[in-house]
Amino acid sequence: MGRLIARKPVLRLTPDGQRRRPDSLAVEEPLELRVGGRPLAVTMRTPGHDVELAHGFLLSEGVVGDAADVRDARYCSSRDDKGVNTYNVLDVGLADGVPAPDTGVERNFYTTSSCGVCGKASLDAVRLRTRFPPAADPLSIASAVLSALPGVLRDHQRVFDRTGGLHAAGLCTPEGEALVVREDVGRHNAVDKVLGWALLAGRVPAAGCVLVVSGRASFELVQKAVMAGVPMLAAVSAPSSLAVDLAEESGLTLAGFVRDGSMNVYTRPDRIVPAGALAAG
Amino acid sequence: MGRLIARKPVLRLTPDGQRRRPDSLAVEEPLELRVGGRPLAVTMRTPGHDVELAHGFLLSEGVVGDAADVRDARYCSSRDDKGVNTYNVLDVGLADGVPAPDTGVERNFYTTSSCGVCGKASLDAVRLRTRFPPAADPLSIASAVLSALPGVLRDHQRVFDRTGGLHAAGLCTPEGEALVVREDVGRHNAVDKVLGWALLAGRVPAAGCVLVVSGRASFELVQKAVMAGVPMLAAVSAPSSLAVDLAEESGLTLAGFVRDGSMNVYTRPDRIVPAGALAAG
Repeated sequence: MGRLIARKPVLRLTPDGQRRRPDSLAVEEPLELRVGGRPLAVTMRTPGHDVELAHGFLLSEGVVGDAADVRDARYCSSRDDKGVNTYNVLDVGLADGVPAPDTGVERNFYTTSSCGVCGKASLDAVRLRTRFPPAADPLSIASAVLSALPGVLRDHQRVFDRTGGLHAAGLCTPEGEALVVREDVGRHNAVDKVLGWALLAGRVPAAGCVLVVSGRASFELVQKAVMAGVPMLAAVSAPSSLAVDLAEESGLTLAGFVRDGSMNVYTRPDRIVPAGALAAG
Repeated sequence: MGRLIARKPVLRLTPDGQRRRPDSLAVEEPLELRVGGRPLAVTMRTPGHDVELAHGFLLSEGVVGDAADVRDARYCSSRDDKGVNTYNVLDVGLADGVPAPDTGVERNFYTTSSCGVCGKASLDAVRLRTRFPPAADPLSIASAVLSALPGVLRDHQRVFDRTGGLHAAGLCTPEGEALVVREDVGRHNAVDKVLGWALLAGRVPAAGCVLVVSGRASFELVQKAVMAGVPMLAAVSAPSSLAVDLAEESGLTLAGFVRDGSMNVYTRPDRIVPAGALAAG
């Protein structure tokens, strides 16, 4: 975990007094993502799994939909003031025939919508862009298994244990097994790393899987799930209004406040088998 | 709170059974920010205090440093599919002589750095851009007052109480009074709304104040504090490595894990008066 955790001195103040001690911090560094040599985006991320992050980002943006859409991904030479490569610039080469994304603010899909900038236009844009609409996915999961997934995620959060400073995302099976868990200082990055892993593993569309996130469910996280063909998103905290709207329109099951054995199901509850239903059925 | 909260039906699943009930959700809508008619950025935010959000965003980016740098801010006509103005496009006119920001990914300051993309270059960029370095600010606050500030923030979180879905930020005095508290689905937006309020109120540089945030302290949140001349940032959760580095270089006091009467102080602890120090002094 060389680049994941940094040690710093800290002054700990409590009602009982104060003491100096070393503290472990989650590392945050900028990553510049280029496509065909052209800068596309800069994100502040925890180093590691950068190639997955790039794949997941491009999948979420609708640039790629298959691992074969990417020809190669390599770190550029980017030197710090000591002449050492920072490994903070990653250039993705797209396969022949894959159109390069627009750069600049115009690439943002909201502005390409024919009507005004609004939630409805945001939903329309995702519907037009996804290649893997999850509405027909026959996933079925027991509520007891689903409510345990945040605990499964937590068990894999090695860096969080030491720093308390990372978001996590994971892709899980209906049997409650975690296929992959990633941590990052940015919640979007954690999800991009998971979905990039899925793309590289030939698991996109991620049919029959549950995407679990340690925090809230925003529009953008639902968007990422829909773009990757994930039929269910489970969040430990609250969803936003637009996250629910997009889940509803896309046929994705959205569960929030998944904690302490309970949950709120906002859309498509038919994929969740309540406790007792099996015995009663 | 018409545009802050939306009602949706939800299926609540618990170990004891299930029931349908209405749920309150934090509203999320896109905001397109334009400067002089040119699109600069799109952010997913909770509607309300958009003019403050725009001011705070431009302050954080180093485009403006005084309320007089902005000539006007007005909603554009952006119609949804029913022909109703969405109030989701805001155009800011800069005062004469204030240079317009670059648009596109090149506006990102990391890429304008002379050396590679790295944490050090990110720090350098902020140092070069801030007009209000907080290093010499003589702020002094009792640790007991500081540790109570997250509770003060929480008391003002009216929307969070109903949705559980919002980040909060506040600007507080050393006496523990909240000057302003803002909530948003995006943590950066909540801080931008607070700092935009301060700019419009003639309180930038925000000398002698504490910026309190409900979550973690990232590089970008420290950057926003430094750009606004705030000498102290208090976060309920963990900071990242680069957040601590930037606080250290800027002379900002950074406190994390401010909860339950305790805290970790990462930089410039001299501004915090520990419990007992007054009695002993």
